Amino acid sequence: MSSIDLNNIPSIDLETFQHESIFKQNNKYWFFEKSDDSFPGQAFGLQIVQILYHTKSPFQDILIFESLNFGNVLVLNGIIQCTEKDEFAYQELITHLPIMSHPNPKKVLVIGGGDCGVIRELIKHVEIGTVESITMVEIDDMVIKLSTKFLPEMAKFHNHPKVNLIIDDGFKFLKTTTEKFDIIITDSSDPEGPAEEFFQISYFKLLFNALHSQGIVIMQSSENIWLNLSYLKNLLKKAKTIFKNVKYSQCYMPSYTSGSLGLVIATNDESKQLMSPLRKFKPSLEAELFKYYNSKVHESSFVLPMWAQNELKN
Amino acid sequence: MSSIDLNNIPSIDLETFQHESIFKQNNKYWFFEKSDDSFPGQAFGLQIVQILYHTKSPFQDILIFESLNFGNVLVLNGIIQCTEKDEFAYQELITHLPIMSHPNPKKVLVIGGGDCGVIRELIKHVEIGTVESITMVEIDDMVIKLSTKFLPEMAKFHNHPKVNLIIDDGFKFLKTTTEKFDIIITDSSDPEGPAEEFFQISYFKLLFNALHSQGIVIMQSSENIWLNLSYLKNLLKKAKTIFKNVKYSQCYMPSYTSGSLGLVIATNDESKQLMSPLRKFKPSLEAELFKYYNSKVHESSFVLPMWAQNELKN
Repeated sequence: MSSIDLNNIPSIDLETFQHESIFKQNNKYWFFEKSDDSFPGQAFGLQIVQILYHTKSPFQDILIFESLNFGNVLVLNGIIQCTEKDEFAYQELITHLPIMSHPNPKKVLVIGGGDCGVIRELIKHVEIGTVESITMVEIDDMVIKLSTKFLPEMAKFHNHPKVNLIIDDGFKFLKTTTEKFDIIITDSSDPEGPAEEFFQISYFKLLFNALHSQGIVIMQSSENIWLNLSYLKNLLKKAKTIFKNVKYSQCYMPSYTSGSLGLVIATNDESKQLMSPLRKFKPSLEAELFKYYNSKVHESSFVLPMWAQNELKN
Repeated sequence: MSSIDLNNIPSIDLETFQHESIFKQNNKYWFFEKSDDSFPGQAFGLQIVQILYHTKSPFQDILIFESLNFGNVLVLNGIIQCTEKDEFAYQELITHLPIMSHPNPKKVLVIGGGDCGVIRELIKHVEIGTVESITMVEIDDMVIKLSTKFLPEMAKFHNHPKVNLIIDDGFKFLKTTTEKFDIIITDSSDPEGPAEEFFQISYFKLLFNALHSQGIVIMQSSENIWLNLSYLKNLLKKAKTIFKNVKYSQCYMPSYTSGSLGLVIATNDESKQLMSPLRKFKPSLEAELFKYYNSKVHESSFVLPMWAQNELKN
């Protein structure tokens, strides 16, 4: 682990703090998410109460701030990764879509996921008795450590006995591992940064090799239908060169660009109906376990507006 | 109509133009949508290419600009009403949800809708031979006139022979009309401004009185589940004091706050299944008519995340 003393974090003065994503307007400080490369011409703003932490790790620029209405916010390379207000939407969907589509998901691998939100969701299935082991491979231990401090509800199970935490490059790990998994969740940042290689055919091949024949993989697409449909189409095409059964799902949440983020879910089992859950919990258990997900949310996450559906189908 | 010469609009210099929603950063001009009252602490930004028009009408501040990636944008009182990029999502859902849930929608009333996007969608059903007459009551003729100039694709049917355009307060119109409609669509701006009275029980009563017994009303809620769930709950409660069958639907689009906007749909016919279309077109006709809507989009628009569903159910 990096040498950072979480009990002794120096306070940061907003007045003098300089960051290209932060500006002052009418005596208020705003974090302003914009990217000339990824989403030119549009931006999302969150008002800042205080800066909690800022550093440049060996891998990325890490900024954590307290927002006025979205709780604490984790930003990597200027892009919001999660906010305490709406993180559950993404964490639940990317976790429970594959888990509830698999008859018996025992061994799960998480690539990335440093905020540990996916682990929190997986532990629900450990407690039910379905998932037996979780391996998480995160390249940047700073993100994990800072999440335990500033996103404690997300990271609360980072040291759960069923979790095997490996600090390494997920790509490298997959190249060398001889293990096979039932579910592999790629919870990475966007392609601009250390996660670049996760969006290539070579990565889908590595996923395929580390997967049981009935296994399911899921990854965040880094895009949404409003932003870059041709990129999505291309990403799905890459996945289809390796997996026989590839589907596209959408998660709706305010803190991601355009209010939604696409997920690519794939398996080599052609008979598997990924778009509706294989296993369903009764409503009372759903209400106890989930805040975003339920079986209807699972199904409707695959329903796309007409034009996007037609574009991605071809 | 207001005396504005659409062929002779003076150009506006961005450098010297002053508007509280516009600021300059790194030599770029941004429209920055924020509201301390309606959605404190969060903001949406669109980069401006040029200001096309600005005026204060007797009813509201009207700003129209060309954005870098969202086409032309109509802003009323600092709040985005529509952008050319994604307007079809909202216009289609608010129109086709009630029209496709009604067995025989002949007479339609639109309250508000000055950009004429809802009329464009209704004309599709005129051309099919279902809808026979459209009455639109818009308080601010400046919005209509400017839309014909700057949002020509949206406003292209503003003078269609089946459209009866009335420049008046929708609330007043409903108080005095003796007509009965099959569908009433309230396509208003938010409660802060001239549309305030559209979100009260007294308005639901007026809608009820102007509706055939099998009729359906729909309105934009001005909110979404991430922003103000208790307000939505209260709005649905108000609707339920008048209508026996009230449902809540969501439209997902990047230019509305939090990436989604709620719609309230209601009828006094308890047997009507509003959440799935009564009439379905075959896929080829759907693909021809619609860019956002189809029968699956209809159904999934009513599926809410677990926590929101539970909150609104009670």
